[in-house]
Amino acid sequence: MKESPRSNAEQSGSTPESALGTRDRIVRAASVLMQRQGYDGTGIKQIAQEADATLGSLYHFFPGGKQELATAAIDHGNREFVEALNASLDGAEDPARALAEFALGLADRLAESDWVDGCPISTTALGSVGRLPDVQSAAAQAFAHWRGLVSGALVKAGIARAEADELAHTVISTLEGAELAAQVSASRVPLEMAAKHLAQLVDAHR
Amino acid sequence: MKESPRSNAEQSGSTPESALGTRDRIVRAASVLMQRQGYDGTGIKQIAQEADATLGSLYHFFPGGKQELATAAIDHGNREFVEALNASLDGAEDPARALAEFALGLADRLAESDWVDGCPISTTALGSVGRLPDVQSAAAQAFAHWRGLVSGALVKAGIARAEADELAHTVISTLEGAELAAQVSASRVPLEMAAKHLAQLVDAHR
Repeated sequence: MKESPRSNAEQSGSTPESALGTRDRIVRAASVLMQRQGYDGTGIKQIAQEADATLGSLYHFFPGGKQELATAAIDHGNREFVEALNASLDGAEDPARALAEFALGLADRLAESDWVDGCPISTTALGSVGRLPDVQSAAAQAFAHWRGLVSGALVKAGIARAEADELAHTVISTLEGAELAAQVSASRVPLEMAAKHLAQLVDAHR
Repeated sequence: MKESPRSNAEQSGSTPESALGTRDRIVRAASVLMQRQGYDGTGIKQIAQEADATLGSLYHFFPGGKQELATAAIDHGNREFVEALNASLDGAEDPARALAEFALGLADRLAESDWVDGCPISTTALGSVGRLPDVQSAAAQAFAHWRGLVSGALVKAGIARAEADELAHTVISTLEGAELAAQVSASRVPLEMAAKHLAQLVDAHR
């Protein structure tokens, strides 16, 4: 429970920290810190420090300051989630099973990280509502993107587009909520139940 | 989108702000501010200011400071949610319909508050993971309490206890995630879809 944000950023990405450019290190540090401490609780100085960057280079890459950085952090979290979701859904013949396995994979990742390595955008997204329009908009686009991937997989499996779009809302909502509950309760059970019931729900629509 | 936390606290409670004791005003202010800005983004001084209380009286009621206050804020949010959930489930003959209506009620409340008046504990809960054990424990207990209420209603409707306990996880996770998505997207749709699919899921288990 006491890992540094840096070690966590290393765990969750595929590139070792040392090989990353300064901009990427800043974005990763912002992503991890804001996800754990919220937007308001994370200072620019702390981000620079964790990224081994100077304040000067931070403002060079992000002249818009913290809100621009939070938007980039959301985009980074979005790509991370999209990559994982695609790895589960691409070429899956049975999307119900693929989604269930994806949910169990989230549980594995959470448990391995001692329950801190949750959804890369939810804390920042929640804290942005009605206050940080660019950040909120990036988060809304990320959710829409994830729904699009789920819906596409459901359509491929023979579900009508309108129905697949509706189901995709509930798939993403359930995964988000179950990940939150799993983190807070330090337990795999919410994600195990999400896996089971999402598979049932998708199967009932095929 | 620019309402003050105070006016929002008035909206969401049944007692007018002026009639509340100092302790209650402090807890409500802490609850609303932390939900919007996160634990780290909310200062003790700001809470006292919003509650029309002195720092002296704040520390009188909460000698443990911010973490004790956050725990009380979670407990307050818990009671608020329990009251609303009980109002929907008590005496409901059809829990699938009752849960769907509850989800639509969350959408109404969110839309009326310009999407800021979401789950009263999720932001604070997420920000507590692995860092603020008392706050995290209060949040975990709140989720468990809500699941217990849902499970009880499902058992009354004839679903076996073990199955009802499992479903209750997904009901609460889906409501949480849909509320988050609705807030971020400023849209009722995620909660409308949660209402529809949770009703289908519960019906499939009866």
